Amino acid sequence: MTTVKVSLSKSYDVLIGGGLLGNAGQLLAKITPSRRAAVITDDIVCGLYSQTLASSLAASGFEVSVFTVPNGEGSKNAANFIAVLNWLAENRITRSDTVIALGGGVVGDLAGFAAASYLRGVRLVQIPTTLLAAVDSSVGGKTAIDLDAGKNLAGAFHQPSLVVCDYDTLDTLPVEVLRDGLSEVIKYGVIGDEKLFLHIEEKGTGFDREYVISECVRMKRDIVSEDEFDTGLRRLLNFGHTVGHAIEQRSCFSISHGKAVAIGMAVMARASKKAGYCSADCAEKIISAIKNTDLPTECPYPLYEIFGVLCSDKKISGDTITAVVPEKVGKCVLIDFSLADFNEFLRGGI
Amino acid sequence: MTTVKVSLSKSYDVLIGGGLLGNAGQLLAKITPSRRAAVITDDIVCGLYSQTLASSLAASGFEVSVFTVPNGEGSKNAANFIAVLNWLAENRITRSDTVIALGGGVVGDLAGFAAASYLRGVRLVQIPTTLLAAVDSSVGGKTAIDLDAGKNLAGAFHQPSLVVCDYDTLDTLPVEVLRDGLSEVIKYGVIGDEKLFLHIEEKGTGFDREYVISECVRMKRDIVSEDEFDTGLRRLLNFGHTVGHAIEQRSCFSISHGKAVAIGMAVMARASKKAGYCSADCAEKIISAIKNTDLPTECPYPLYEIFGVLCSDKKISGDTITAVVPEKVGKCVLIDFSLADFNEFLRGGI
Repeated sequence: MTTVKVSLSKSYDVLIGGGLLGNAGQLLAKITPSRRAAVITDDIVCGLYSQTLASSLAASGFEVSVFTVPNGEGSKNAANFIAVLNWLAENRITRSDTVIALGGGVVGDLAGFAAASYLRGVRLVQIPTTLLAAVDSSVGGKTAIDLDAGKNLAGAFHQPSLVVCDYDTLDTLPVEVLRDGLSEVIKYGVIGDEKLFLHIEEKGTGFDREYVISECVRMKRDIVSEDEFDTGLRRLLNFGHTVGHAIEQRSCFSISHGKAVAIGMAVMARASKKAGYCSADCAEKIISAIKNTDLPTECPYPLYEIFGVLCSDKKISGDTITAVVPEKVGKCVLIDFSLADFNEFLRGGI
Repeated sequence: MTTVKVSLSKSYDVLIGGGLLGNAGQLLAKITPSRRAAVITDDIVCGLYSQTLASSLAASGFEVSVFTVPNGEGSKNAANFIAVLNWLAENRITRSDTVIALGGGVVGDLAGFAAASYLRGVRLVQIPTTLLAAVDSSVGGKTAIDLDAGKNLAGAFHQPSLVVCDYDTLDTLPVEVLRDGLSEVIKYGVIGDEKLFLHIEEKGTGFDREYVISECVRMKRDIVSEDEFDTGLRRLLNFGHTVGHAIEQRSCFSISHGKAVAIGMAVMARASKKAGYCSADCAEKIISAIKNTDLPTECPYPLYEIFGVLCSDKKISGDTITAVVPEKVGKCVLIDFSLADFNEFLRGGI
């Protein structure tokens, strides 16, 4: 087991190992005297892992309630957010108790925002069961729901008190969903870790789980420690995401987050090459790593459609947009574009 | 004009004076380079003051959008919260722009929580138009909505960037609503300022606006500075509120917040006397000040009904409740009760 220590406005451990779910009760008991836990999960994860989690919690004396939403991005909506809040209140969860997010990024974001808002904030434990959640959304405290007008438009910064990443849960992950997570791992490689990038290029879905997840979490920890509230450096983590979110939304979420980000990274690599920010070799490496992982690299929508959607992206501050532009594998830079210039820049990549 | 400087996780000014609404544009222009503002208000306040505010903002170059909810506690609900978020997104409000809460506590709490959540937090300016909002809810960063199970069960800590308190707006306040605000002023007197208490006892609704509002804001500022996130001293501000909230909710909000808190303070005064925490003279002074202001002091519900409701109060942590108990006018103490003991304690007051 690897422990990554995170020190932000709150300090907490990210535990990464096999078989941790069966010890969740003991792990949780170490961080809280309360013996009540409210588990938020989705219907697929519930069938696979809620019994193991609930048994472990019960064995450590916890009274457990479980709330289930349908699997999928569509569940990260305002109606479910309110439903979770009402359910927490009906179950008389108090400020001493703990909300547990058991699932992927959708569940983590939804349960996290509910934990941030219920009673103005209760303890949150993230138990990611997808690679994407393990390497990205479960660490760093960003929580959110989607609004009609776009993804992640409402939310809160709410750090978990503990992250339990049992990578044995990846065994049941459809390979498509595992690849979605690899898209984020490639991102980490491009923005700051060439060795990690080469490992994924070589191993694909047969990657070393402990090494890859630990490296990604450490990198995220280091970036977030510099910029907890997303006003600067943290934007590096958005490499491929501005275009990716727009693609995801334009597709009405029929294109997954991981695939959309993969396309977004490829678009940025091509655009960056075209504009002279990176070499042809660098762009080629990024695109080839994405292709090797069986992720898409071509945007199925014309520029004007993508651009129309991304203009409602929350990263846009007034009339400018901060883009994450690759210079080489292992280094990206933040560049402020006017909307018009960014449109022109993207023309080189879509 | 009096300026009270608040230094918490964010520093901001509370401006207290007559005629400030007409200068709102200039005041806002000093704290932000953006020239977009989203005003949240209620239908009554909108008719009275939104034109003055909008004109002032427009004169300083602001583009202004206005969202109106019906006047009254019923508007502080989940549906309106989501509606405000969607409206902000549809209007493409960005992280550079400003949400303005123009109204009483309901509007301030609703707009404040929306500003805290939209894009994980945008700039908020509070323009209180009731005495209650001026002396209490507009300062200190607590925002909330009610859930089906109880008042203020979801929300966030989100400090405003500026509070503009134009007390000329109190001219249009129904005397009933002004008295509701005086209930909070009496609370400040009991928990920490005998001089203020005596001023209200003497002047009633003819109180000195600049003196009273400034003193209350200063006291709140001092308490909140010690305990921004409500884990200790800040609970003093809840004097009369635990019982008050239960009465408010039991009445389905037909009893106003101010009246309910007045009854709650009277209940706590009687119970405190009965249990020997304060003298008969102290309890008598508190109750007589409340009566002098034409506020109620008798609880219209039996203890078991109030107790059932308050057990879902978010202040309850596990099986204990922290009560604010008066020792004398100008000094209250925080006492932890088991639920059973608190029930017995309240029996002396209801």
